[in-house]
Amino acid sequence: MTLEEMGARALSASRLLASAGTSAKNAALLGITKALVESAKSILAANALDIDAARAAGINESLIDRLALSKERIQGIADGVAKVAALDDPVGMTDSGWQRPNGIKIQKVRVPIGVIGIIFEARPNVTADAAALCLKSGNACLLRGGKEALRSNLEIARVMRGAIKAAGLPEDCVQVLDDTSHETAAKMMKLGKYIDVLIPRGGKGLIRSVVENATVPVIETGAGNCHIYVDETADIDMAANIIFNAKASRPSVCNAAETLLVHKNIAKAFLPKAKELLDTKNVQLRGDETVKNILGDSVVPATEEDWSTEFLDYILAVKTVERVDEAIDHINKYGTRHSETIVTQSYANAQKFLQLVDAAAVYVNASTRFTDGNEFGFGAEIGISTQKLHARGPMGLMELTTQKYQILGSGQIR
Amino acid sequence: MTLEEMGARALSASRLLASAGTSAKNAALLGITKALVESAKSILAANALDIDAARAAGINESLIDRLALSKERIQGIADGVAKVAALDDPVGMTDSGWQRPNGIKIQKVRVPIGVIGIIFEARPNVTADAAALCLKSGNACLLRGGKEALRSNLEIARVMRGAIKAAGLPEDCVQVLDDTSHETAAKMMKLGKYIDVLIPRGGKGLIRSVVENATVPVIETGAGNCHIYVDETADIDMAANIIFNAKASRPSVCNAAETLLVHKNIAKAFLPKAKELLDTKNVQLRGDETVKNILGDSVVPATEEDWSTEFLDYILAVKTVERVDEAIDHINKYGTRHSETIVTQSYANAQKFLQLVDAAAVYVNASTRFTDGNEFGFGAEIGISTQKLHARGPMGLMELTTQKYQILGSGQIR
Repeated sequence: MTLEEMGARALSASRLLASAGTSAKNAALLGITKALVESAKSILAANALDIDAARAAGINESLIDRLALSKERIQGIADGVAKVAALDDPVGMTDSGWQRPNGIKIQKVRVPIGVIGIIFEARPNVTADAAALCLKSGNACLLRGGKEALRSNLEIARVMRGAIKAAGLPEDCVQVLDDTSHETAAKMMKLGKYIDVLIPRGGKGLIRSVVENATVPVIETGAGNCHIYVDETADIDMAANIIFNAKASRPSVCNAAETLLVHKNIAKAFLPKAKELLDTKNVQLRGDETVKNILGDSVVPATEEDWSTEFLDYILAVKTVERVDEAIDHINKYGTRHSETIVTQSYANAQKFLQLVDAAAVYVNASTRFTDGNEFGFGAEIGISTQKLHARGPMGLMELTTQKYQILGSGQIR
Repeated sequence: MTLEEMGARALSASRLLASAGTSAKNAALLGITKALVESAKSILAANALDIDAARAAGINESLIDRLALSKERIQGIADGVAKVAALDDPVGMTDSGWQRPNGIKIQKVRVPIGVIGIIFEARPNVTADAAALCLKSGNACLLRGGKEALRSNLEIARVMRGAIKAAGLPEDCVQVLDDTSHETAAKMMKLGKYIDVLIPRGGKGLIRSVVENATVPVIETGAGNCHIYVDETADIDMAANIIFNAKASRPSVCNAAETLLVHKNIAKAFLPKAKELLDTKNVQLRGDETVKNILGDSVVPATEEDWSTEFLDYILAVKTVERVDEAIDHINKYGTRHSETIVTQSYANAQKFLQLVDAAAVYVNASTRFTDGNEFGFGAEIGISTQKLHARGPMGLMELTTQKYQILGSGQIR
């Protein structure tokens, strides 16, 4: 099937799905949960072929680990789908409504976006996650995964489509592209005739490529050069716990901290405490002169590039600042508008930081690691938007809908 | 000044403006109102040069009329700015807030988008309109107008900047590009470093070009291939008044109707009534066979192309349909997702139409001409979005803002 044909099918399916009730969608999701577990054998067989091919192509073991499925992982994926079934359905909610002087009644109603294109990298669990969230929010999806996981993705989609059909919904609301070429991905980025929005999920290169080449509207996700600023008045133990958690609990994710900013008046008391904790995970510190003077020779001199690098590793850039405004300016200059924290006991500085830092999530006295759909209480997320249009921060089911004005008149003309 | 420099200045200005209070912004807007009226002479002088150049370049008189300013038109522009000062400021509103089990408090707060790029065509009033809406919503704007209005736009911006500065706000929050070349416009479309969103305002070609070339997120506006569907049970007089209003009250605007769909069972009774009204404005009808049989030889045979054409003129395509579903399918196939009306007395068909038609504004028994920021009660609009991300339908001040999560903790880690 050509990409055009898949797009046309997705559009037709989205029209049917948009008026499906919550019960029907939930039945399909619970059917998928069951089918995934029951089809573990065929999914694992497809996955084994992907892994063999990846090994033969010399792909490194950490990537192969992300690609690999097991019975337990499939159960985890199925449980995730069941969790989506349990979430509230935003479709059909009336966000607001009013009457105009001429008597027309205007209502702003939540509706599905339509067809969502998702371009993602290796992990096959994204196929089921993303498709389940799209289905629950009434959207058809076109999924283009990485070539390494192609057989796994196609098999997961086959199982899901069977369960969707069995539940009486259009199976074409979940489709995986079997062609993972760059040419087809490029075509998908321009398929505005059928696709309403593209969500890239993956590394910087992938996201850049989608933003630069797409004519379909894109929701940019993922890049997180996050900061923890330790203010002059911070509680030192709290600050040490927060930077340790934000940096070292899971360095590979986008809400992990990459740079620590420290007020010069607290640096001497705070930095050794922080280092003690960070040393337990062998975090490399890249600091300015002052930091080096306080912590000694194990500190690598920081370069200009370090301030804008998302290390995604056990590396932390550390800089001292003269005042809160300098910290805010640094964050607005080098940050990626993802998640930023101030640790302080000063009301004024907390307010200033909340107001002036330009980011999706701005924290006082908490770890940046909370920027996550589950932690925010959304139940699940399709990604974390770092752009300002449509959605900002963690995107749950609500962010996969749009609005429509419904206007009820009695013959009004203008 | 280069475009890059202008972008950097806009970004700096936007950071200052984001924390300006409503009173300061209103003072600047009222200062602009006064300054525009007081500077009528210099604005008219600049406008006269634009008009001379346009005449010399052989530009047609209807375009020159759109370009031309007068004392009255300047007063109208100034009044528009004063109206924006009177609107509610969305910045700082808390849309929602909740507490998580671990005690962190999450608030979703309205903030300005940042820097808004607007690319528009001839009419110089857009400069003041758009800049006023951006200013009130706390955004800096970079305006790139048509070359025909360049001198007028620059002079209006000069006057506005003076008033903004006098009010103590950063004058660089309003900047007009003095270079109207395509190369610079193309650069602007890729200036994501400084511009958060691009809003094109103008004809189909302009909007297409921005959507296809921009890497900065775009809000697509404007194209309206709107339909009126007259159902079997419609009140015939109401239906005739609605189609006459929707087609002929102002054919050049995007919320005007372009196609009339009529249920075959009401066609014989309804069409002659409608024609009688439409004839008073010499509206050309392009109909299918049935329409031609009912209304006679003055009906031009409709072509496939007519169903997807936005005539923006005294021309109306007319088609008979067998049932409401055929009307809905036709609209979803040929429409531009702008504004669509059903005229009916059937509850079931009204509900079906509201639910299944995919458009920003779906009407029962009212003219499509109401899709407009003023008519919706927003006070003013920056354009009408026909895309599904971020904003749909008329965009007022609220749609020129985004959200930011502010999270208050007491040392929480994950």
